[in-house]
Amino acid sequence: MTIANPTDTAAAGTSADQASSVFERRESVVRSYCRSWPVVFDRASGAEQTTEDGQTFLDFFSGAGALNYGHNHPVLKQALLDYLGTDRVIHSLDMFSVAKREFLEAFEEHILIPRGLDYRVQLPGPTGTNSVETALKIARKATGREQVVSFTNAFHGMTMGSLAVTGNSMKRKGAGIPLHHTTTAPYDDYLGGDTTDFLWLERVWSDSGSGVDLPAAVIVETVQGEGGLNAARAEWLRALADLCRRFEVLLVVDDVQAGCGRTGTFFSFEEAGIVPDVVCLSKSLSGLGLPFSVTLMRPELDLWEPGEHNGTFRGFNPAFVTATAALREFWSDDELAATVRERGDQLRRGLEAIGADTGGHYRGRGLLAGLHFDDPEVAERVAAEAFDRGLLVETSGPESEVVKVMPPLTISAADLDRGIGLLGDAVRAATPA
Amino acid sequence: MTIANPTDTAAAGTSADQASSVFERRESVVRSYCRSWPVVFDRASGAEQTTEDGQTFLDFFSGAGALNYGHNHPVLKQALLDYLGTDRVIHSLDMFSVAKREFLEAFEEHILIPRGLDYRVQLPGPTGTNSVETALKIARKATGREQVVSFTNAFHGMTMGSLAVTGNSMKRKGAGIPLHHTTTAPYDDYLGGDTTDFLWLERVWSDSGSGVDLPAAVIVETVQGEGGLNAARAEWLRALADLCRRFEVLLVVDDVQAGCGRTGTFFSFEEAGIVPDVVCLSKSLSGLGLPFSVTLMRPELDLWEPGEHNGTFRGFNPAFVTATAALREFWSDDELAATVRERGDQLRRGLEAIGADTGGHYRGRGLLAGLHFDDPEVAERVAAEAFDRGLLVETSGPESEVVKVMPPLTISAADLDRGIGLLGDAVRAATPA
Amino acid sequence: MTIANPTDTAAAGTSADQASSVFERRESVVRSYCRSWPVVFDRASGAEQTTEDGQTFLDFFSGAGALNYGHNHPVLKQALLDYLGTDRVIHSLDMFSVAKREFLEAFEEHILIPRGLDYRVQLPGPTGTNSVETALKIARKATGREQVVSFTNAFHGMTMGSLAVTGNSMKRKGAGIPLHHTTTAPYDDYLGGDTTDFLWLERVWSDSGSGVDLPAAVIVETVQGEGGLNAARAEWLRALADLCRRFEVLLVVDDVQAGCGRTGTFFSFEEAGIVPDVVCLSKSLSGLGLPFSVTLMRPELDLWEPGEHNGTFRGFNPAFVTATAALREFWSDDELAATVRERGDQLRRGLEAIGADTGGHYRGRGLLAGLHFDDPEVAERVAAEAFDRGLLVETSGPESEVVKVMPPLTISAADLDRGIGLLGDAVRAATPA
Amino acid sequence: MTIANPTDTAAAGTSADQASSVFERRESVVRSYCRSWPVVFDRASGAEQTTEDGQTFLDFFSGAGALNYGHNHPVLKQALLDYLGTDRVIHSLDMFSVAKREFLEAFEEHILIPRGLDYRVQLPGPTGTNSVETALKIARKATGREQVVSFTNAFHGMTMGSLAVTGNSMKRKGAGIPLHHTTTAPYDDYLGGDTTDFLWLERVWSDSGSGVDLPAAVIVETVQGEGGLNAARAEWLRALADLCRRFEVLLVVDDVQAGCGRTGTFFSFEEAGIVPDVVCLSKSLSGLGLPFSVTLMRPELDLWEPGEHNGTFRGFNPAFVTATAALREFWSDDELAATVRERGDQLRRGLEAIGADTGGHYRGRGLLAGLHFDDPEVAERVAAEAFDRGLLVETSGPESEVVKVMPPLTISAADLDRGIGLLGDAVRAATPA
Repeated sequence: MTIANPTDTAAAGTSADQASSVFERRESVVRSYCRSWPVVFDRASGAEQTTEDGQTFLDFFSGAGALNYGHNHPVLKQALLDYLGTDRVIHSLDMFSVAKREFLEAFEEHILIPRGLDYRVQLPGPTGTNSVETALKIARKATGREQVVSFTNAFHGMTMGSLAVTGNSMKRKGAGIPLHHTTTAPYDDYLGGDTTDFLWLERVWSDSGSGVDLPAAVIVETVQGEGGLNAARAEWLRALADLCRRFEVLLVVDDVQAGCGRTGTFFSFEEAGIVPDVVCLSKSLSGLGLPFSVTLMRPELDLWEPGEHNGTFRGFNPAFVTATAALREFWSDDELAATVRERGDQLRRGLEAIGADTGGHYRGRGLLAGLHFDDPEVAERVAAEAFDRGLLVETSGPESEVVKVMPPLTISAADLDRGIGLLGDAVRAATPA
Repeated sequence: MTIANPTDTAAAGTSADQASSVFERRESVVRSYCRSWPVVFDRASGAEQTTEDGQTFLDFFSGAGALNYGHNHPVLKQALLDYLGTDRVIHSLDMFSVAKREFLEAFEEHILIPRGLDYRVQLPGPTGTNSVETALKIARKATGREQVVSFTNAFHGMTMGSLAVTGNSMKRKGAGIPLHHTTTAPYDDYLGGDTTDFLWLERVWSDSGSGVDLPAAVIVETVQGEGGLNAARAEWLRALADLCRRFEVLLVVDDVQAGCGRTGTFFSFEEAGIVPDVVCLSKSLSGLGLPFSVTLMRPELDLWEPGEHNGTFRGFNPAFVTATAALREFWSDDELAATVRERGDQLRRGLEAIGADTGGHYRGRGLLAGLHFDDPEVAERVAAEAFDRGLLVETSGPESEVVKVMPPLTISAADLDRGIGLLGDAVRAATPA
Repeated sequence: MTIANPTDTAAAGTSADQASSVFERRESVVRSYCRSWPVVFDRASGAEQTTEDGQTFLDFFSGAGALNYGHNHPVLKQALLDYLGTDRVIHSLDMFSVAKREFLEAFEEHILIPRGLDYRVQLPGPTGTNSVETALKIARKATGREQVVSFTNAFHGMTMGSLAVTGNSMKRKGAGIPLHHTTTAPYDDYLGGDTTDFLWLERVWSDSGSGVDLPAAVIVETVQGEGGLNAARAEWLRALADLCRRFEVLLVVDDVQAGCGRTGTFFSFEEAGIVPDVVCLSKSLSGLGLPFSVTLMRPELDLWEPGEHNGTFRGFNPAFVTATAALREFWSDDELAATVRERGDQLRRGLEAIGADTGGHYRGRGLLAGLHFDDPEVAERVAAEAFDRGLLVETSGPESEVVKVMPPLTISAADLDRGIGLLGDAVRAATPA
Repeated sequence: MTIANPTDTAAAGTSADQASSVFERRESVVRSYCRSWPVVFDRASGAEQTTEDGQTFLDFFSGAGALNYGHNHPVLKQALLDYLGTDRVIHSLDMFSVAKREFLEAFEEHILIPRGLDYRVQLPGPTGTNSVETALKIARKATGREQVVSFTNAFHGMTMGSLAVTGNSMKRKGAGIPLHHTTTAPYDDYLGGDTTDFLWLERVWSDSGSGVDLPAAVIVETVQGEGGLNAARAEWLRALADLCRRFEVLLVVDDVQAGCGRTGTFFSFEEAGIVPDVVCLSKSLSGLGLPFSVTLMRPELDLWEPGEHNGTFRGFNPAFVTATAALREFWSDDELAATVRERGDQLRRGLEAIGADTGGHYRGRGLLAGLHFDDPEVAERVAAEAFDRGLLVETSGPESEVVKVMPPLTISAADLDRGIGLLGDAVRAATPA
């Protein structure tokens, strides 16, 4: 992510004299994406976003994974309009509602049963970090242990519990207090293949003198979307799942960014054939960009007291409605998944071709991919050049050294090609020979 | 809140054989309100909620404060339908959008300027706990101190940072780890008037040997909605603000439940004439029950690095739209506020009359009120009797010993009277002479 | 304690050019007492210390309570010489030794049995802070709880566990990390009688919503030697013991400074008639200034695994020998105790007379007493003036605002009078009319 | 260390009916060594300890390293008797004393100057854990960072700060609270050579996204006496020192057990040619088993406020006296060091020969050595068989799987041979073919 100068008064400069805009006057300087893309967006449809001045951008960012089905998908939007049009209940905390029942039934029918998964669904509040905090509570409660292992360059959220398992030092420092009860382990390929996978965790968990307590859980992303598009190999994930099972440590998969089809299956861990104990889902779950998240857990772990965790917006029915529509539209058959795998291959070939000329290295899986450059300044120049060409891409990684490419899953092959072309131009402009 | 038996299979029993329902099969046992109200809600309008079976309830709960303007308020709903109907951008993270600009302008015009307040607005993610976590980060960053003082029976949220300043021991235990960097102080009247207000904090902050470090901030609710409807006196709040100023400790008001007009002014602290350094708003801010929250801070405290705090749903434009509509509809003049004060008096008189016969004691302020009973089992019986009579009220307080009464701010005097009548019947049925 | 300038090169200046001394070159600037008393001590006997230059001082400091029987008491010293002269075992960890057996038997015979006390004795390492750390471990292990309540201006030691229950902010800051798992409560009279004793603790421990968890233990000094000579009233201590018993919270008395007869009984809590669950003893336990400490606990609390706590110097036999000699010499009858009470009265009268003229207020109990001055600079001037007159007294309290007076328990009435006279002169010199 | 049954009433059974002994009645069940060696020791000289019944044992344990010069070394003892005989000051806190000056001068002359080392000396209290706690405070204060890296199977002490950097899980659990601000790294050879040394630390310290904060310090033992006699290679220590220097992380060597000549040089790190920033010394520093410790730091790190760390027994003059005598007796020339290296070789050859027949593997360096057996029960049987043959050896390692051999440095070649012979018999008896 680009870290621009917080006093940059050029922000949002295309529309008006922004130095006197309400954004400058009133919005906190913590704002970030608007620094890379200083325009005011108004309309959006499918893979495109349009500014109030009528400038249209091809969106290869997809709301950081919250818009997998593109902007304003007509089927999902119609379901929402139908619901809202007839005074149906919008906000219901954890009361029972018709819309919640339909969501649970659709989730069971289209997701759990076909995959042979048996999870309880908790509605922990509508954001990814609510789901992660809840997953950590579940793991600690069920095991009676306190430590949680997370991985280098992990990103799990900004509230204190999630931040404690997040790697980025700038964001961690924002906590203002030390972050505890967590242990960091190397993600797949972090040490360059110089060591056996899980050698360290297996050794210290076996050794009562190691000083490393057996944790409640390991939390992992199958692809690190914020951490630099690092994709774990299937065999690494299987070895992790096996290690956890042997030591009776719970395995939590944070599928907030990589889930909902982004890597070519509904859950990103399906390809590896593992079954996590707890799963966090959010972002594209509602399908239309509405705040929504769930925490899935094996039934034996559902040990809560009623109300032991709560939250005002844990029953936001419009999100149940659009999520139900999305499950029915996209996950009642394998069509979308097959398309994503196809587009993923297309994207990979495109990125590899760009990288071959310019020193970029492909990273990622499916439609969660990137180009890594050794010079950390290249990626930010690429993002700026792409913006100038009408393409929205962001950067990722601790030094913003990776160009992150996340088109909608529903993008056409032609639009994907068009975007890859624009990106190639941008990369070449940013890496002058 | 009623803590029912998690294995209670009577849940949602009015509609069908719930033992085999998807709620039983799939929803986590952490669910709570549905245990008190075992029906399936479908429609809702104004002060009423209707089940799928057509049973209508008068709603004196208002989404725990998220539905101050009632369900499906037509003006707000129309604004949302208009926005959604034209492919406007729904999800935009912290990019600039037209809808965000309109919200910031409306907030400036209708809220800040008339009250002479100068705050920066941070969009920290759409829930109250996101806002509280952000407020604590701001306070720690700005002061370089770590401790935060909170009050007995406070409720600030369920993620780790917010839970650390929350009093309820059952919810705290759910953390699974010790909660640190916080100090508890007695809320107004906690010690029964047996001691001078703030004697303790003033003494220990003045004494370098006290063992109590000077904190970054004090976080306070002006009325403790979850903690038992305890309402702080204006002079207590002024003394607190004065104490904080003298010691250069930041004052954070968590106005998530008491704000947005609930006590008779937009901010609940206006009556006391104090100006907090940081303010948390959520719940009714969107007006229609959409997830939304902001953190307000004095401009000098806006010391963030770009992106130092973030969150996927911090730019949910539909909530900007309904919030803007709500500000224009209800806060461009003093009419709603005046009505709330009137209804608040009506409610107080009604509750005091009920309490006079039954041993109940009035608690609260404005339309955030309750009846406290010495026998902690009474309040739960009252809630159950009210439900049987078609009235939704919940309980509050560490032992669920207070009947909590939160009608919509927009309720008519007649409906308020009707509800008070039903509540009176319920209380009398629950407290047999 | 005087906090002098660490770069003060006048240190130890009476004997030689100290700027080039080995103390300047090699000893850490953390050194402290030598800044008030810049001389090099060599010999010591009874109530007197003599410098290498032959200057003799009357010692009203007694090694901060480690020399209750004066310097080089002949009976104790002879016991030590006899032991050392015959190749008896000096260092034995927690092996059994004859000297340890004799100590345990003497402690049982002269201390426990006459007082009807049934304690197990743990040898946790030879310093007060070892004993306090051990006491806290015992309390947490036995209760399964984590919090410990300590009092304002408490002093319990400098290792991390003890420092967490110590009040002084300068010393706490030296930890370099936040100090947790502890809660501070007001010591007797801390709030000036403006509140009922233990109102706060009783209220929050009774209230499941208070946010203050029930602690494992309360740790208390009956007189706060470092914290300003605050002496708790017997009824306050009894109320504390009663409160702890009702809530099944363990009561730990840190008798490191006030114990071994300093207040007129062997344990300082005897006068209040309470029986703590755990007691920490050190300082004068060996009688001759040898490092030694014990932790006493009710037998039911002796739940250790073998070796779960250890320490290299937990079996220092010379200290067992001198401790045994001291118990036999001073605690086989009530003579010393009676004398201390007499001298304590003499000291109190003397200090009150000095204070009457000069604005000083008596503080303390027995021979652990002080004069408090409102102007925090007076006490340090008094200590300096006393030193110039050949009397060693130190300061105490968070602002070093109390002159601390701790003559040996064995001092003669005449020497005590002489010292009081010198102190009176010093006070008058330091408080010019 | 042998973990016997705490209810074992056979303790100390050789002398009397121990079930009714004062040890059973009064000493905490935490006692440990006495469970392996159930006799009552009385006299001790050189390499021998004798019970009250006249049974003499060859001591290959040396007070866990506190008796490097044997029991009751005549030169040291005479110095002590001379000092005590003339009413010299025994206890002086951090006042200047003649005995302290002589110690500092001897330490400078015999230790620092010949080795070209420039350290300030802090007297932090007389135990190893006091020294370690002080070292950690210094490192955190000087760097402003909070984390400290320690190694697998490290042992640094039992107070909270030291316990947080100690590996043994049973001892850690005794804390009763979570232990924070520390990170564990693999000790030399911990991962069986399967990974490059310091690959992990170098990678995470270089990566701002790793989630592992740069620490204040690394604390290391050159040989892990309690952790299983693991000896770090000189090149590993040099690589560690180099890593720390590059990242400006302080290097703390805990030389409490391995220092004072145990490995063949005064400081155990001399062989590797490194210069730590902070050094902890205790155990054999006084030479005669008297409690004593120092913390050495580079002068730039001596940033204390006067009195910011303190402790009652930080000025125990008899220990200064015997330490001075030991420095003069043993460290004014290289004779002892040369002897230790010779005896170390002799011991190594002996242990390797024993191991060759019995499946034992040599571990350690100099006279801090051991035999590791794959079956964790063997070592304890060896210790028991050795005791039956009149030889005191202990076990070490997380599973007590290593026989630990620490004869006095002053042992004769003949006595060493005799002990090796007894040990060989014991091992063979414990490992029947």
